[in-house]
Amino acid sequence: MNLLTKADILSARQRIAPHVNHTPVLTSETLDREWNSQLFFKCENFQKAGAFKSRGAVNAVFSLSKEEIKKGVATHSSGNHAQALARAAQLRQIPAYIVMPENAPKVKVEAVKGYGGLITFCKPTLAAREETLNKIVKLTGATVIHPYDNIKVIQGQATTVAELIETVPDLDLILCPVGGGGLLSGTALSALYFSPGTQVIACEPKGADDAYRSFYSGKWIPSENPKTIADGLLTSLGKITYPIIREKVSAIVTVEEKEIIEAMRFLFERMKIVVEPSAAVTLAAVFSKKVNVDRKKVGFILSGGNVDLNHLPFNE
Amino acid sequence: MNLLTKADILSARQRIAPHVNHTPVLTSETLDREWNSQLFFKCENFQKAGAFKSRGAVNAVFSLSKEEIKKGVATHSSGNHAQALARAAQLRQIPAYIVMPENAPKVKVEAVKGYGGLITFCKPTLAAREETLNKIVKLTGATVIHPYDNIKVIQGQATTVAELIETVPDLDLILCPVGGGGLLSGTALSALYFSPGTQVIACEPKGADDAYRSFYSGKWIPSENPKTIADGLLTSLGKITYPIIREKVSAIVTVEEKEIIEAMRFLFERMKIVVEPSAAVTLAAVFSKKVNVDRKKVGFILSGGNVDLNHLPFNE
Repeated sequence: MNLLTKADILSARQRIAPHVNHTPVLTSETLDREWNSQLFFKCENFQKAGAFKSRGAVNAVFSLSKEEIKKGVATHSSGNHAQALARAAQLRQIPAYIVMPENAPKVKVEAVKGYGGLITFCKPTLAAREETLNKIVKLTGATVIHPYDNIKVIQGQATTVAELIETVPDLDLILCPVGGGGLLSGTALSALYFSPGTQVIACEPKGADDAYRSFYSGKWIPSENPKTIADGLLTSLGKITYPIIREKVSAIVTVEEKEIIEAMRFLFERMKIVVEPSAAVTLAAVFSKKVNVDRKKVGFILSGGNVDLNHLPFNE
Repeated sequence: MNLLTKADILSARQRIAPHVNHTPVLTSETLDREWNSQLFFKCENFQKAGAFKSRGAVNAVFSLSKEEIKKGVATHSSGNHAQALARAAQLRQIPAYIVMPENAPKVKVEAVKGYGGLITFCKPTLAAREETLNKIVKLTGATVIHPYDNIKVIQGQATTVAELIETVPDLDLILCPVGGGGLLSGTALSALYFSPGTQVIACEPKGADDAYRSFYSGKWIPSENPKTIADGLLTSLGKITYPIIREKVSAIVTVEEKEIIEAMRFLFERMKIVVEPSAAVTLAAVFSKKVNVDRKKVGFILSGGNVDLNHLPFNE
């Protein structure tokens, strides 16, 4: 039995449509010629709050019951989920309690504040983050919205590829980044329901390859001291996302840091779009020949565009 | 009498359609809210060879007679026109002789070579460039395609706003950068023919304000030692472009360098697109309150995205 049905994903599309962007799909003549293929880039860097995370956050917040909604939502995150959840809560005019490590980048803190998020700072450890979050939940009764291991979040992320498949049917492959697996498990389910002939291949930085190791060993192995510039992909697969990925994803490939940087530079320089390193792992998998796209029709999920412009990795 | 008719612009659209991108129009909820307006960004940074210049170059090259075409085309340019002309010539499989100053940035030289352009280097003075170009034309019989003071080039550039008006009708204003005036004169004519109620306002860097001074003094005043980071806008209005602009443009405003940089950063950071400084002068005119957009529907021509990513002005 699948946790999410085709109808669930269709209803999420309707639920979130007024509050998120139907993002464009871009192509590159240069890439298509060079790789003898047809490549389609789903630009979630143009999504509200700069990343696909807005889809899951809006879906989760707009799925809350009347009782739940009164007490607001909470999460711990220093990344795109924090911004997306604060924005979704603002749309429903409810509080969003965001626990952030005290060393979180100023630009991220400002973005969460900009969406009206109520920030509580804590020590930069997972234990401190969880403890602080638990304390807030006890005080407020807020509903915790996990960044990826939450069925409503996965349902929202699944709309990304449902949209892509509608715009570009008959894809041979979809390349998707993997961190905690919310986007990837949603992608795998949408491919299954809306384009059953399409294979999903996950792309992961070698420095944070827990999904790769979990997938090929057949047992869940969390990250230990992951290290990569793709800061959206540091997390480990979750209890809900891992089984979906193990069953529905065709393969996982890993890429090196320099390959991520090269792909990111190409996306800026030739395609004229601002993407974060986590988004570039997909194209990096092609540049490094980890995935063969010859004569294939391939979709890429460019997951987000929230990057520190003062420290672009190809300039460091 | 107008040099270019409505039918001329429509025929240019047909002529160039197979060889250029129909570029997307982006919007920003944040900007619309902040400025109480509806702003539409025509993204010529996503155009072939990274700038609107591809439209004019393709139109000029594909308008050549059978006799002319054999001998190829020539120009002197170190900018986007050089790349665009080399690309257009490559499409017709004819030679493009490009005269470039010997101090031209390596990245621009490589781009022209990438499109098969035949480069002749010369001393970095206008006299040397013209002399070298004349010599090549005498030797080869190639047709000179001026970057902006050429009726076929203006006809091609005019298609940008013809497309924008088709996508977004009933604009109150269109903001367009001005350098030599090829894009601006084409924009003014397309607005006149396809949306007569739309006013065109040109935006120019204060450090290269020959168009501003020419427009308001009523006589043609060329640039002297212009200085701006908007390197596409250093040129002076031409003999063909100046009279069209004087007659059809509603106003010209100038912006400071720091205003250009601020607008460019916003386009990167919030709209997630890579633009060159010349494109950002339009949004800079709003940020600096030189143009009032309150409750108006406004189009912006983002002219190009060819920028040195290692030297982004907001990082210098």
